[in-house]
Parts: sequence; structure tokens; C-alpha cells
Amino acid sequence: MNIEEKNGSTVISKTSDYEPGKNWRNYLIGRPLQTADAPQQTIGKFLGLAVFSSDALSSVAYAPQELLLILSIAGTQALHLALPLAIGICVLLAILILSYEQTIHAYPDGGGAYIVARDNLGELPAETAAAALLTDYVLTVAVSISSGVAQLISAFPGLYEYRVIIAVALVLVVMLINLRGVKESGIAFAIPTYYFLAMMLITILVGFIRFFTGSLGLVPNAPMDIIGMRQTLEPITLFLILKAFSNGTTAVTGVEAISNGITAFKEPRSKNAGETLIIMGFILGSMMIAITFLANKIGALPSDEETLISQLARTIFSGTGILYIGAIVATTVILIMAANTAFADFPRLSAIAANDGFLPRQLTYRGSRLVFSRGIVSLAAIACFLVIIFQASVSRLIPLYAIGVFLSFTLSQAGMAHRWWKSGHLKPGQVIKEPGSDVIYDSGWHYKMVINGFGSICTFVVMVVFAITKFGDGAWIVVILTPSLVAIFSLIHSHYKRLAGQLSLENVNPLPRVAHQKVIMPISGVHKGTLAALRYAKTLSEDITVVHISSDPSENQKIQEKWQIWGDGYRLVMLDSPYRLFIEPLLTYIQEIDAKKQPNEIITIVVPQFVPKHWYVNMLHTHTADTLRRVLLFRKDIVITEVPYQVD
Amino acid sequence: MNIEEKNGSTVISKTSDYEPGKNWRNYLIGRPLQTADAPQQTIGKFLGLAVFSSDALSSVAYAPQELLLILSIAGTQALHLALPLAIGICVLLAILILSYEQTIHAYPDGGGAYIVARDNLGELPAETAAAALLTDYVLTVAVSISSGVAQLISAFPGLYEYRVIIAVALVLVVMLINLRGVKESGIAFAIPTYYFLAMMLITILVGFIRFFTGSLGLVPNAPMDIIGMRQTLEPITLFLILKAFSNGTTAVTGVEAISNGITAFKEPRSKNAGETLIIMGFILGSMMIAITFLANKIGALPSDEETLISQLARTIFSGTGILYIGAIVATTVILIMAANTAFADFPRLSAIAANDGFLPRQLTYRGSRLVFSRGIVSLAAIACFLVIIFQASVSRLIPLYAIGVFLSFTLSQAGMAHRWWKSGHLKPGQVIKEPGSDVIYDSGWHYKMVINGFGSICTFVVMVVFAITKFGDGAWIVVILTPSLVAIFSLIHSHYKRLAGQLSLENVNPLPRVAHQKVIMPISGVHKGTLAALRYAKTLSEDITVVHISSDPSENQKIQEKWQIWGDGYRLVMLDSPYRLFIEPLLTYIQEIDAKKQPNEIITIVVPQFVPKHWYVNMLHTHTADTLRRVLLFRKDIVITEVPYQVD
Repeated sequence: MNIEEKNGSTVISKTSDYEPGKNWRNYLIGRPLQTADAPQQTIGKFLGLAVFSSDALSSVAYAPQELLLILSIAGTQALHLALPLAIGICVLLAILILSYEQTIHAYPDGGGAYIVARDNLGELPAETAAAALLTDYVLTVAVSISSGVAQLISAFPGLYEYRVIIAVALVLVVMLINLRGVKESGIAFAIPTYYFLAMMLITILVGFIRFFTGSLGLVPNAPMDIIGMRQTLEPITLFLILKAFSNGTTAVTGVEAISNGITAFKEPRSKNAGETLIIMGFILGSMMIAITFLANKIGALPSDEETLISQLARTIFSGTGILYIGAIVATTVILIMAANTAFADFPRLSAIAANDGFLPRQLTYRGSRLVFSRGIVSLAAIACFLVIIFQASVSRLIPLYAIGVFLSFTLSQAGMAHRWWKSGHLKPGQVIKEPGSDVIYDSGWHYKMVINGFGSICTFVVMVVFAITKFGDGAWIVVILTPSLVAIFSLIHSHYKRLAGQLSLENVNPLPRVAHQKVIMPISGVHKGTLAALRYAKTLSEDITVVHISSDPSENQKIQEKWQIWGDGYRLVMLDSPYRLFIEPLLTYIQEIDAKKQPNEIITIVVPQFVPKHWYVNMLHTHTADTLRRVLLFRKDIVITEVPYQVD
Repeated sequence: MNIEEKNGSTVISKTSDYEPGKNWRNYLIGRPLQTADAPQQTIGKFLGLAVFSSDALSSVAYAPQELLLILSIAGTQALHLALPLAIGICVLLAILILSYEQTIHAYPDGGGAYIVARDNLGELPAETAAAALLTDYVLTVAVSISSGVAQLISAFPGLYEYRVIIAVALVLVVMLINLRGVKESGIAFAIPTYYFLAMMLITILVGFIRFFTGSLGLVPNAPMDIIGMRQTLEPITLFLILKAFSNGTTAVTGVEAISNGITAFKEPRSKNAGETLIIMGFILGSMMIAITFLANKIGALPSDEETLISQLARTIFSGTGILYIGAIVATTVILIMAANTAFADFPRLSAIAANDGFLPRQLTYRGSRLVFSRGIVSLAAIACFLVIIFQASVSRLIPLYAIGVFLSFTLSQAGMAHRWWKSGHLKPGQVIKEPGSDVIYDSGWHYKMVINGFGSICTFVVMVVFAITKFGDGAWIVVILTPSLVAIFSLIHSHYKRLAGQLSLENVNPLPRVAHQKVIMPISGVHKGTLAALRYAKTLSEDITVVHISSDPSENQKIQEKWQIWGDGYRLVMLDSPYRLFIEPLLTYIQEIDAKKQPNEIITIVVPQFVPKHWYVNMLHTHTADTLRRVLLFRKDIVITEVPYQVD
């Protein structure tokens, strides 16, 4: 305990004696953690790649497949376009990697799209980035889990009809794990990620060996449900190619993850994070091209029944043996890890945005396990909703996915470009203070501005292409949703700002002392509870008016007589209520008194309140006090005091 | 306004200035009525029969049918037992009429089973009567409406699949009418009742004429769904006959209605009511026998597709012409009227029982239209529930129906028998005061006691027979439900009695004056709302402790500094909350202070409370005050005061 006296005020600081007890939640999510328990561990590049790349790397499980799906509409002869498109996507990836590399060095404390947009572009772009990212995280969960379930179904077709329930169950499991709190720096992340990379490496290597030795055949018993059922083929138009390209760009989702998590890296953290980003980009690009190439060679076709990865593994490993199962399990697990990443990012971003006043403040509250529990639960609820609505179908979810991602890329890089421009107009040594990271002069600002600016333009174009080509397939939902979210965030922000202004103590004169207190005490009868309330009322004022609302005149006489014995001479008003109402006549009476109030006079309503021992007994009583409070709270200078009277 | 001073107390009596405004409910149920608006009109025998007999008379729509239904299980040759059974039921009816005739004269202010049991048999029988009657009223609604819908379906078979929804809609319409309030003395009741009687008279007369002239054939195209589908016939056992008899006794339900409503009759009201009862009994008995006889003659068989009344009318009127439709409509309307009777009785009985402390007191409250709205809505809700569960099938509802009726008959008549016994042991001129009706010496007490006693035994036997024969068909529900209800009523009663004892001012010493007030004021920050609350707290005491629960130590410094400027020198306690909780550390702190409390010291918790203009803004704020109040109400001598601070 620390006692400090200053300017006549005593301030006592101490730690609360409260200790959390045991309850059912402890079994589910673990014992409460103190704020001081927050982990401070940092990680190197090897673990960093595992922790932050599952979202990006797992994209290869669905991006090539969705790309091929669109091309297949134009028939098998269109499939040769897949490889050039995959290479185009890798170029886009390279631009993004270059661009984010610069962000990582400029924001050593973490430079997600929201922070960069907020610091460099202003309020509206920040709100837009928040809307885009939050949508994106929700879809990452829905798409990754659905794709994971699709992999499982490929290996165990009998599970097909349970896909939605399996997907929802997986979302809830990941939610629970996150409510317990995951240490992002754990070795637990490294095993599945490197296992996935190993399995992909083996699959691709064996695939190429068999291809070059000529022993790689076509997919045996290829699923026929897509192509087989199509009656007429569409022509190969530019629109179709762009649509296929759009689907493929979902491969680059998750690239920004490292820029959010720079603080988790060992020093020099920007350097380590940047190098990890480049390694990740290289792996992702190679896998994208290799998988597209091999899928083409074996004649794999996208299907609802069997994923591309499954067809690939089945063909390369000549059957569904141990290596096949290994590849499927690895893919499923990495996809669940990707969902897990969103469970770390969504609550963290909500908390940052809430702290900035764009979202309800409650989202900044960290639960008993030091995680932003409310954000985690919200994310799980919305993701489950999407999974159910879209029946866990990756193809139906994809049109909603990448717009948010590319919108956040665009804003982030535009923010960076603007930051370089500001940086270029500083003198060496001059500093612009910013919450995220201070701007200092950078001699290479021209060059860097061009890179980020070009990246921004590229991602903007991709976003527009995506929105147009996928509009009818579901992208319209996001096109409507994003501005709506931005509008809501703006309203919330202006509410908090207005409130802060109204509560601010700047230019405020001290309030005049209360000159007089008037007490009004509604009673239903004269009994012990009434007397306890009267005893309290006497400590407030001598100006006490007791009011009885009477619906039943036959009881009036009894109440008056009792009051004359027990009322200590205080005034009793018997209000006849011809409509047998209670609250309304009382309110009318209080308003009449209120209207005659003097300046600096306060009216206190003292309500005698029964408190039964058991809550269910409340059903046997009316709850006047509750109703009264709800209505009177809105009046100025009326205070409601409940004097509880406990009965057994 | 009336001001009265007595023993130093001023008592002001006046009528509230509150006037009800217009709202949506006015359109649905009409403008609010003053208590003084209650109708005082009385009616003669002609209208009295119409108002109080719909429940009893409408029973002929289902009782003969359900009787035949059981007999038909033993094949067509068992159907000749129907007429003797119907005659037996009429004997039972005669006994009941004689018995109730005596009740009506003994209780000129209304002598329902509950009042008679309460005044003459005691608490437990009164609770049992209440349970039986309330169950009975609910089933009257469910059975009558379901039977009404069955009549409609007979005429319009296309409606069969909508029967449940039609029944629920009808219940809700009757509910709405009753929420508006029905004048029981209205001519509106006479038209449908006498229309029904006229249609029945025509049907039966034409039926007999055609029977005696030999032109009454069999039912053309008789529905075959019951007999036709039966594979094996059951033998005619005593059990089967008793079961059929039990089903038929549902004809006497509703006989007690007049004894509840005696006050509605013109003087001499007991005489008028008694004569009305006898007329009703005569009509009911004749219809029961006539319908059973004719149904037998035309070979009518009970069916799910077509009611007995419909088969009868269709055969007698040779087709589905205007007379047929007229008979069906009359039957449907009288059944709906019967349900309406229950809507008058259930809420009235609930209110009486609630006033006696057996049911929640809220049921005594009369709504804006002077009706017991809560009872009306409860009845509709439970009846709809039954209709849905039993799919509006009369045959499936019947096993639940008559037990409650006969239980209340038994208790009522046993109560009367006991009353006559008491009466016989009085000296002429001696009086036993009772709430329902005073007991005076009656010279014919022996004779009257035997009549009521015999009636009681008869109805008891019927009840037991009913319960045994229909046990497996659903009567078990009532056998379990009735004692459960009695137990609940007992618990409620003992709660109210205990509460009254605890609140009673007998043998109470005046409370000592409050010696000291301690104020604890939890704050989340130092702002205008805090200062408004502090200003109020200063009117209570100088012993004020302001508590800030701190989850974020970075804000502590700012709050302390602000407090040193604005806190007027009052003590500030900064409570560190390592688990980031708010309520729990605050409660622990309050408990620590509470434990050190002096005698006659009161702790007031002053809670600064934001009040936003719009309720939905509340989503953006935490509701500490609500949680705090919920937890602290249970502690003695802790008072919670909310000081609202309105923000725009």
C-alpha cells in the first residue's frame, strides 16, 4: 500500500485483495492470468516463418484449384492458360514482397495496414482499412477451415454430408484454443508448418522426377462432377481470363502477416522479419507455379468431391497410401493453422481500433487469459455463420474473400508512398512524431515511394478486376458491406469524440453546492421495509414526501392509520389512480414536483426495495424500482436511491 | 385535494393528474377505462341462460361422439349401449343440477368450487379446487376450440391440414376480444346461443319426424377411417363400457358456470339463477339423449374427418344445403363462445386465488380495460400450447379434460355438505361469519346435506373411473399435474405468509437513527459525470472514499493528477486489478470496509451513471452500475445510489 498526499488530496494505491476462485470456465480455458504474466519471448527466422506464414503458404491449397475451376468452364483447351496466370500472380507476389519489405523497416513496432493508413492517410482510410481487414480475417477463417474440410473429404468421401458440422466444430475448437491463449512464439507452430513444407517438397519433387522420367500419368478415376455435367463450353474471353486470375490471386492472401508481428522477432527485428518475408515469398511462389504446372500435366480438374491437392498426391504417389495421407493431413493442418492466425489478428486489430474509438470500447478488454476474448468469440460467431450460409464451399466463399485483402494492401502501400513523400520533404535529423512510427528523412525516398506507389496501383487494379469479375458471384456483398462498416465505425468514433467533449473538464466551472434536497419516497404499504427506507431518507433531508399510489380505495384507511403511528410525522400523499396504474401517476407527480424545483435543488427518489433470498421469488413480486429507474434516469437532477430490505 | 392532519401527520389525498395517452394498444384493445367505469348491469333468465350456458350446451358437440368412439372399438353391435349410457349421464346431470341449485341459494354472491372449498374445507382443498378449475378452464378452451375447428373441417375438408393454425388463431382472437373486455350481460351472447338452440331443435325435430315416418336412412358416404381401418375388434368389457361412459361425462362440463355468476342476475338473483340452471339442465339432457339416439339410428360413426353433428345434419337434411351449413356454423360458434366463458372464469379465479395468496399477486392487477389481462394472456398461451401439442384433436384432449371438472364438483359438493352439517349445529339466529357467505341455521339441513353429499360421492366415483379408464390415454398428465400445482400454490402461499410476518410492524421497536454514513464512490475516470456524482455525495456525508479500479497502470498518473485538481481533497483509492477485472476487486474492497462497519452505520455506494440519449448507444458502454446493484442488493445496510449524468 502506498499513501501519497499532495495538494490536500490523499491518494492511496494498493493491489486489490481479490483472488479469482475456481469455476467451470477454468476447466475449459484455464486459470486466470495476471497482466504481468504476459509473455515477452522473441523468436528467430526459423520459428518466425512457421508462426507467421501459415496463412500465406496454405493458400496454395485452394488458389490453383480455384484458378483452374474458372478456366475449366471454357473446356480443357483453356487449361494451358493456368501456368502463365500463375506466373503473373507470382509477379504480383514479388511486387507485394518488395513493398512490404519497406513497411517492415519503416515500422519496427508493427505496421499493419490499419496503422499505416491511420498514421499516413487519415481517419476515413483507417476506418476503411479496418473494415477491409476485419472482413478479410473472418473470411480467412471461413475459407481456410472449409478448404481444410474439403481436403479431409477428398480422403474420406463418407464425411461429405457432415462437412458443415465438421467445419463449425473446427472453428469452435480453434476459438477455444485461442480463448485459452496461444503463445505465438511456440515450437508448436513449427512442427505442422515444416511438416507441411516437407510434404509439399516431397510431392513436388517426386512429381517432377516422374514427369521428367515420363512415368507420371493422368489422374486415375478423375472426378467428373464439374466438366462432366457441363453441357456447353464458354468461349475463352478476356473476362474469363481475368476472372481466373482473380481467383488465383487468393494465393497472396496472408502475405501481410509478418508486418503485423515484427515485435515478435529477435533483434535486429526488422532485418529478421524482412528476410523471413522474402523466404516466405520465394517458397509460396515456387509452390504456386509447381502445383499449377503438375496439375496441368496430370490433367487434374477441380471438383467438389476431390481437391486438387488430393488428385495431385494421389497421382504422384500412385494411390492413397501413407505418403498420400501424409500430404492430405499436412494440408488440412496448415489450413487450420491459417484460421488460427486470423484468430490472433482479428481480436488484436479490433482492440487497436476500439482503443482509437472506432469500435466499442469493450473490445479492448482482455479476458482472464489475457486475450481479447470478446473479439475471439465475435470472430468465431461470424465465421460459423458464413460457413453455414455458404455450406462450407470454398468456391462459393472465394468471391467474397480477396477484395478486403487487396483493399488493405492498396491502403497500406498508398500510406507508405505518402509517408516516403513526407520523409523526402524533411531535413536530415527532422522528425514527424506519429503514434505508429516516427517519420525521419530517408535519402532513398524517391525510389521507395515509387515501389510502394506501384504496389498500391497494382493491388488497386487487382481489387477492381476482382470486384468486377466476381461481382455477381458474391463480391457484391463485400462491396456493400465495406462502406457500411466504415459508416458504422465513423458513427461510433463521432459518438466517443462527442462524449469525451461533453465530459471534458476543460473550461468547466466548479459545480455549485447542492442547496436543498427534496426526498420523494413511493411506498406500497407501511411495513418494516418502508421504515428502513424512511430511516435512510431522514439522513438525506427533512423535506420528505411519502407517496402511496392507490388503486384500491378500500386499503387507504389502513395505510393512513398505520402512517399516523409509524410515519414520524412526515407528509403522506395518497394518490388515487383511476386507471389502476402505478408508474405513470407516480411519474406525473414527480414531474409536477420537478417543475417547481429551485436552482441547485436535487430530488432524490428513495425506493424501498424487497430483496428476497432466492432470485426466483422475484416472480412473485412487481419490480417497480426497476421500471422507475429506467424512466427517471433520463431526468436531470433526479437521483434514485434504492434501500434494500432483505427478507428470508 | 383533501388535506387531513392527525397525530402530527399530514395526509394529502388527491386524484392523480395522469391521463393516458394514445398508443398502438388502444387500436387493438380500446382506450383505458377508469375503475369507476366497471359495468353494474344485471340480467334476467333469458339473457342469463345465453351468457352462462354456452360451455355446458356446447358439450353436446363432442360428448356423444367421444362416447360412440370408444364403443365403436368393440364393433357396431356395441353401439346399442350408447343410449343407456347417455341416460346414465343424464341422471348424473340431474344429481349435479339439484346439488348446484342448493349452492346457488347458499352463496348469493357467487359460489364457485374454490370459494366453497376454501370457506368450508380449508386451505389444501381450496388449493386443490383452484388447481382443478384452472386446469379445467385451460382444457375447456383447447377442447372447445378444437371441436369448433373439427365442425368447420367437416363442412370444408380442405381445411384439415390447417386445423392447428386455425385453432391457434381462434384462441388468439378470443384472447383479444377478452383483453378488450366483454360485457357478460350483452345481447351479443343471446343471438349465437339461441341460434344454436334453434338449429339443434330443428335438426332434432326433423330427425324424429323422418325417423317416425320411416324416411330417415343411414349416413350416405359414411367416413370409414375409424372402423374401416380396425383389424380386430375388442370384446365388450366393463372397462370398455366405463371408458365410454367417462368420455360421455364430458357432457356435464360447464354446469357450474351459473354458480360463479350469480351476481350478474336480476334480483331475486338466487331464484333467477337457480331457475336458469334447471332450464339449462333440461335442455342439455334432452339434446344429449336425442343426439345419441338419432346418431345410433342413422349409423353414424365417429371419425377424424367428419364430426357426429355434421353426419347427423347431413343425413337429416339430406345433403349439405343451407340448413346443414346453418347447423355447422351454429355449433362452431357456440363452441367458440364456450372457450370465451373460460376466458372470463380463468382470470377471475386466478385473481381471487392470488388475492388469497395462492398465486402470484400480479394476477390481481386489472389492466387498462378493467380485465385481468395477465390471466387472459396466460390462459391463451397455455391453451395454444395444448392445441399445438395435441394437434387440435378432441379425442386426444378429452382424456385430460374431465378429471379437473369432477374433482372440482366433488370438492364443491363436499364443502356444501360440510356447510349444511355446520348449519345444522347452529341455533336459529346464530351466524358463522365466512368470507364467501355467512352460515346460518337451516331447518332442512339434513335433507340438503344428503343431496350434496350424494352428489359429491357420485362425482368422486366418476372422477376415479375417469382417471383409471383414461390413465394411459393422457389422464396421467392431470394426475401428476394437479398435485404439482397444489404444491406450488402451497409454496407461494407460505412465501407470502412468511413475508407478511417478516414485514409486520407488530411488536417492532422503532429503528435507531443512522449514526454515520460512509460513502464509497467507484469512478472510471475524472470527468463531468464524476464531479456531478461527487457533488451529490457531499450532501450525504463528509466521509467519502473514491475508488478507481485500475487495469491499466499507464492511466493512473493522469487520474491522480486530475483528482488533485478536481477532487476537493477527498480520499482517492487506486486499486490495482492484476486480473483486469472491475466488479470483483470493487466488491472485495466494499466487503473489507463493510466488515469494519460500526453499529448504525450505513454505507452508501454512489455510482456515477452515464445516461445516453438513445438506448442503443448503451452497447458502446459497460454497465457497471447494473452489475454492482445486482450483487450489492443482497447486503444489509448497503444502499446504492445512482447519480445520472445525461449526455446528448
